[in-house]
Amino acid sequence: MKIALAQINPTVGALSRNSQKILDVIKDYSSKSDLIIFPEMCLTGYPPQDLLLDSSFINKAEAILEKIMQGVGNTPVIIGTIRKENNQLFNTAAVLQRGEVVAYQDKTHLPTYDVFDEDRYFTSASSRDPISIDIDGQPVKVGVEICEDLWDAQYRTKVSKELREAGADIIINISASPFHVNRMEKRIDIINSKADELKCYFIYCNLVGAQDELVFDGQSCVISPKGKLVSLLPGFVESIQIVDLEHSMEVNSSISTEEEQIFNALSLGVKDYFQKTGHKKAVLGLSGGIDSALTAAIACNALGKENVLGIAMPSVYSSDHSIEDAKQLAENLGIDFQIIPIKKINEQMLTDLSPVLNGSSSGLAEENLQARIRGNILMAAANKMGALLLNTGNKTETALGYCTMYGDMAGALAVISDLNKTQVYTVSRWLNKYYEKSMIPENSINKLPSAELRPEQVDPFDYDIVSPLVDKIISSPQNVDDLKDEGYSEKLIEDIMRKVRISEYKRRQAAPGIRVSKKAFGVGRRYPIVNKFDT
Amino acid sequence: MKIALAQINPTVGALSRNSQKILDVIKDYSSKSDLIIFPEMCLTGYPPQDLLLDSSFINKAEAILEKIMQGVGNTPVIIGTIRKENNQLFNTAAVLQRGEVVAYQDKTHLPTYDVFDEDRYFTSASSRDPISIDIDGQPVKVGVEICEDLWDAQYRTKVSKELREAGADIIINISASPFHVNRMEKRIDIINSKADELKCYFIYCNLVGAQDELVFDGQSCVISPKGKLVSLLPGFVESIQIVDLEHSMEVNSSISTEEEQIFNALSLGVKDYFQKTGHKKAVLGLSGGIDSALTAAIACNALGKENVLGIAMPSVYSSDHSIEDAKQLAENLGIDFQIIPIKKINEQMLTDLSPVLNGSSSGLAEENLQARIRGNILMAAANKMGALLLNTGNKTETALGYCTMYGDMAGALAVISDLNKTQVYTVSRWLNKYYEKSMIPENSINKLPSAELRPEQVDPFDYDIVSPLVDKIISSPQNVDDLKDEGYSEKLIEDIMRKVRISEYKRRQAAPGIRVSKKAFGVGRRYPIVNKFDT
Repeated sequence: MKIALAQINPTVGALSRNSQKILDVIKDYSSKSDLIIFPEMCLTGYPPQDLLLDSSFINKAEAILEKIMQGVGNTPVIIGTIRKENNQLFNTAAVLQRGEVVAYQDKTHLPTYDVFDEDRYFTSASSRDPISIDIDGQPVKVGVEICEDLWDAQYRTKVSKELREAGADIIINISASPFHVNRMEKRIDIINSKADELKCYFIYCNLVGAQDELVFDGQSCVISPKGKLVSLLPGFVESIQIVDLEHSMEVNSSISTEEEQIFNALSLGVKDYFQKTGHKKAVLGLSGGIDSALTAAIACNALGKENVLGIAMPSVYSSDHSIEDAKQLAENLGIDFQIIPIKKINEQMLTDLSPVLNGSSSGLAEENLQARIRGNILMAAANKMGALLLNTGNKTETALGYCTMYGDMAGALAVISDLNKTQVYTVSRWLNKYYEKSMIPENSINKLPSAELRPEQVDPFDYDIVSPLVDKIISSPQNVDDLKDEGYSEKLIEDIMRKVRISEYKRRQAAPGIRVSKKAFGVGRRYPIVNKFDT
Repeated sequence: MKIALAQINPTVGALSRNSQKILDVIKDYSSKSDLIIFPEMCLTGYPPQDLLLDSSFINKAEAILEKIMQGVGNTPVIIGTIRKENNQLFNTAAVLQRGEVVAYQDKTHLPTYDVFDEDRYFTSASSRDPISIDIDGQPVKVGVEICEDLWDAQYRTKVSKELREAGADIIINISASPFHVNRMEKRIDIINSKADELKCYFIYCNLVGAQDELVFDGQSCVISPKGKLVSLLPGFVESIQIVDLEHSMEVNSSISTEEEQIFNALSLGVKDYFQKTGHKKAVLGLSGGIDSALTAAIACNALGKENVLGIAMPSVYSSDHSIEDAKQLAENLGIDFQIIPIKKINEQMLTDLSPVLNGSSSGLAEENLQARIRGNILMAAANKMGALLLNTGNKTETALGYCTMYGDMAGALAVISDLNKTQVYTVSRWLNKYYEKSMIPENSINKLPSAELRPEQVDPFDYDIVSPLVDKIISSPQNVDDLKDEGYSEKLIEDIMRKVRISEYKRRQAAPGIRVSKKAFGVGRRYPIVNKFDT
């Protein structure tokens, strides 16, 4: 049996465009394959969120599926979409053949945790049955399941097993499974164990592309009844491949390094956000530091160097090397570069603001003032060019609130906001190695991080200690005692926990950030602003 | 039977403080009443969101309930809290008497729509049983249910009925039911019909206080077996009242006007946000227009006039009357007032930004520049004073994206962001009438709205037409045809729908706004930024 895995990149809401993409694949692959498989909800894009509450959206999705149906001949096709019945909405796999729906298999397990809200929209499948499709005149029973149905450890219903025991010859999982670092290893582990347990082929077809904060990595795959990987589609790109189950051979899983995964995921996150919102050009502030340097490198990879403008905005507190390092970076990357000093603007503001600043020229208010002048300059440049401002903040500073609202927190998209400061360094070093030249200036990597908002300022954290501690606190709720056992001082733990807690109000207004960790700030982490739980 | 309804205002996460509040009521009311009832999750505050994923939070809540138990004597007490069993978390009512838990009744219906995410955290009750408590040596069977359990039209399990049929003498509903305009009428309607259907007393104890975007209005009440209102606690304030069921008499429901409800809800929203985050002082920009005028009036009511500073920031495009109207408002309210012109700052910015503005001095970029200079000034004043900036944007302009990110969209809390432009006028007029003097200057009410960012600019909308249309589009997904039937032109409908859709990226970074309508922007409305569904 020749199976075409159509790992496509749809756009949320773009029903016509998505259906055209699907029809093109059906047209090209029907004669070459015995079955074509598309990912979960690829007709609507994932996740459409509250568009699912709009009956005109549902009706149009259903109508467009009817149209696709007309394009399906002898070769059966499985498409992830939605359907409504008796006022209940289902996340479903439509199995089509010869212009008709052979059957729908609805999703059983509806994830309602982390970034997922499926209980908000969907009803769970009432039953699961293998679906008989006709392949070259032979009936084949396919067990179809959707994404979470594979991850059944926490649930009573074991979907894959139930389908196999009911007579499925193969199990097909269609997914819209978002990326985080090393997610793929876990996926292969569980699919391996399923194939091995059920003694049948396991086909996994995953969505690719970015949607707001989420990146879907693709990496669709096929595992043989012996639990061997026999096909693996590439990550972070659209790909359609035919896998011949009769002539399959074991392939190497060769998961790429953490740094490469991150770089590819963030690049796709930027690329799709721009493409899907209709933008080409990006602006970002270059401080000479490592955060903005890495962000610029990712932007170049995603958008092309000709579409990136870096702006250095030195103040009286900026060191010479900052401007030099920013300039060097722009040269390394080959991007446009501008220098706009903020000294005079800042002076004018301090003068005119004296009634409220009481003649003071230093303090938190005055530091923030500079950051917000820079935010204003960057937004003005972006507005003028029809470009989007990229935010350059990292996860550690966002966690601790070491950032200025409407200043360095401004931006349409926060590119590296899910990388802790340590990861910013490791990815930057990897990048220089990968390109076999110094893309990120060595000086940006080696100097002490500083916001340069007052004389002699350096970041008030030992990032080697604080970065992993912050990550632990964010990734799952932490007990002070457990962290003490790991060697952190109680004072430090409580200080960091408090900073994370009281900075929620800043993050509520932060730019959406691309998620690459298991727990990012954003839609998957929902803390109250008014929160008096001080552990 | 004398029932004490303890309509208290807890703080999310403040377990010790909340428990102290509860213990104080128990101490004061045990000898005067036969049963004391507290609202849903009043021990933890509502909604604690992802604090509920933290086992140390759950453990502490459970430990603190044990402590409260020690303070409970012969008079039984019902307290809304959380409990964990077999790794499942329940939203529960603990019925306590003589130092012990008589029983827990868990919540059956877990709302997972609009602002609610209870499926993310909780497991549904496996059973519902009347709980026998001892009142003066007599056993009384109370049927206890929680919030959504009352609103059972959409659910198969009819909780109130099931409890009554199982022998409950009275039904007690503990709630954390958020306010929106005219919500109370619907509550009384459904409680009336329940009491009438079940022929027993129906006791409704609701939380009061604000939490981030949500305002809980209290208005706890008792309905007699004949469906008559026999007790109604006040709205928007803490209140503890004893209702003697044997000697109850019908009372008037006297729901206040929509304008008064809104004014009270927004005042409580501001007051609690400040108190619970430890702030006293507010700053806001006064443009001379009606939005900032109404916001200032609400701030005075919530925080006291001595804690409010209004800043007028005229530009070259500001008319004289703008500053006069702003000044007049400050005088009417008796608040501090400053004028900080932005002309020079703006000129300096245009000069220094010429490399990116290409020497242009007018256009969207230059308009936004001014708005962001004002945002920066306001934030600097707020930072210097340790105050919070109040955002003054209304729902209509937020919907249409007629606002500047980091400019007039800045602020810790968006006070009137859930009022459409028409409501801003009606509440302002009501306010002037209520205070029997012109609080909001008549000129601010009567002149044409303008952002004054370019010469002769007025808002490009006929708000009388656009305000209600925008509200319809936001409150529930709308069909173009249905709206055409209501008399709106197709061109206008599509233009407005498009504006709402493409402005999502702005609202994602908006200040949290106080919800007073059925569908506010914020946590209850979740649309993708990348969204190509153009109806």
